[in-house]
Amino acid sequence: MKTFDEITQIISAAIDQIDWNKEPHGLYEPIGYVLSMGGKRIRPVLTLMACNLFSDDVQPAVNSALGLEIFHNFTLLHDDIMDRADVRRGCQTVHKKWDDNTAILSGDVMQISAYQFIANTPAEQLKRSLDLFSKTAAEICEGQQYDVDFENRDNVKAEEYLEMIRLKTAVLLGCALQIGAWIGGAGEEDAQNLYEFGINIGLAFQLKDDLLDVYGDEATFGKKIGGDILCNKKTYLLIHALEFAKGNEADELQSWLKTTDENLADKKIIAVTALFNRLGVKMICEDKMQFFYTKAIANLDKVAISDNKKQELIKLAEKLMFRND
Amino acid sequence: MKTFDEITQIISAAIDQIDWNKEPHGLYEPIGYVLSMGGKRIRPVLTLMACNLFSDDVQPAVNSALGLEIFHNFTLLHDDIMDRADVRRGCQTVHKKWDDNTAILSGDVMQISAYQFIANTPAEQLKRSLDLFSKTAAEICEGQQYDVDFENRDNVKAEEYLEMIRLKTAVLLGCALQIGAWIGGAGEEDAQNLYEFGINIGLAFQLKDDLLDVYGDEATFGKKIGGDILCNKKTYLLIHALEFAKGNEADELQSWLKTTDENLADKKIIAVTALFNRLGVKMICEDKMQFFYTKAIANLDKVAISDNKKQELIKLAEKLMFRND
Repeated sequence: MKTFDEITQIISAAIDQIDWNKEPHGLYEPIGYVLSMGGKRIRPVLTLMACNLFSDDVQPAVNSALGLEIFHNFTLLHDDIMDRADVRRGCQTVHKKWDDNTAILSGDVMQISAYQFIANTPAEQLKRSLDLFSKTAAEICEGQQYDVDFENRDNVKAEEYLEMIRLKTAVLLGCALQIGAWIGGAGEEDAQNLYEFGINIGLAFQLKDDLLDVYGDEATFGKKIGGDILCNKKTYLLIHALEFAKGNEADELQSWLKTTDENLADKKIIAVTALFNRLGVKMICEDKMQFFYTKAIANLDKVAISDNKKQELIKLAEKLMFRND
Repeated sequence: MKTFDEITQIISAAIDQIDWNKEPHGLYEPIGYVLSMGGKRIRPVLTLMACNLFSDDVQPAVNSALGLEIFHNFTLLHDDIMDRADVRRGCQTVHKKWDDNTAILSGDVMQISAYQFIANTPAEQLKRSLDLFSKTAAEICEGQQYDVDFENRDNVKAEEYLEMIRLKTAVLLGCALQIGAWIGGAGEEDAQNLYEFGINIGLAFQLKDDLLDVYGDEATFGKKIGGDILCNKKTYLLIHALEFAKGNEADELQSWLKTTDENLADKKIIAVTALFNRLGVKMICEDKMQFFYTKAIANLDKVAISDNKKQELIKLAEKLMFRND
């Protein structure tokens, strides 16, 4: 079994080897830029780890793993245009450093590039990997659309939010694991259990993200605390706060949601966080995160391989749950 | 052999059968809207015609044909954002009718949908069809990037322009023909000759487009005459005019290129068209169009099937060359 570090190393080396220094530079340079920003490389790591559960040789899964990482970064690139986000991982976003048109077109060719790597999935696994990848990719767009739709709605339910983050975040983790398992030679039931493990880890991961945005440490989190609060993002925390707040607290929350004055930004973050605390929504979010984490571990338990082989995946899952960034 | 009309009918019916009425509507509705605008359906028709050269049954090629048509419409959707075009085929463009973010995200999922149809290429032809499609799709993005790059350059050469339109327009026609031929059971040499036929028809087709934009009839052309002139688009005509104009004519041309006053739009179109006529660039463009058309017919001649089977393709090629819209 390869360790997390060994697998991360394989992925990093493979990403570094892709040549984006080709014509026309205006099209390909932004892709190299985006991929060089780093990130956790969770998806390709999951693909190789899942493959490694069933096969000592992870090389056959590297191309598919790269395809998933390129696709993930493509979604960030286009999401950043839509969100008008200027900074990602401490660097200027592509539409800011270049312009919108560059970000649109480089993103488009990035998506094609992702498919080119997926197309190099070993022949026996190509068709079903391709189909799962396309289904997943479409679901991610659907999740993004729901996310946008939620901005203009005041009655988003917690279940709708969970379905949105399942689509926007969780399915790609599931897909990464299932494709890796297939390439490693897993049976369909094991591959399916790993998919479900990915879904539940993904849901827990996103709830952790919601928590970090409010309760994280700015120095380690890498972006400003309270960003979701400032843009009234309907996170699991806010949705529950809107549900639980009555009387004065409801009025206060509504009043802060209407506050867009940038000079009041710090005050808004402090006040809304205090409301979250009083309403007990932090604990609700933490409990739900724990709920999905426990489900994920149960999915992994069912995979018919020895427990010691699962340790690296469990360690990674724990790392994602108890992370600070 | 099926006639052009029969094949067009198969394609239209298949496009109409795709269900875009699904959740989230904000994501899928614009796709149905774009595809319902019509268009010539040249690419999917070419796929079925190429298949039909080698096989009576064109059904196995329908999914791939639809994938190419969806991809083509995706490129128009994203190009219209980049060009800030408000109207396409007499209808509002998606970013105008909805907004930029909708156009970006619906376009993204359209590209995925194109791949989903391509993935249903018959199994024996899947890998090479997928690879050719991805290579072609990336080339189209490269062509679009060169097109954008040319806007900021005053020294674009005719050869560079031809390479740009080869990438942006011609390769998808070649790809459509080659995939259709493969599915029909063509040998590699025939499939390659049909690809080259598509490239040369595509180049001629785009030169015809350049001509129609200046010399077309507004009523049949479907958009305003002179659009390329108004935005100083470096077409085959303008590139040669810039090369041939000397002395006063060069000064006059440069002066009009600097004219952006909308009140002078009609005057600019008349004056630049008159310069084109005096400089003889219309004939140069027509000659080049004829050159590629002749090459295309020579490519088709080499395909090892009886001449009478080629008649529908020749008729379609003629229709594209002598069209008014």
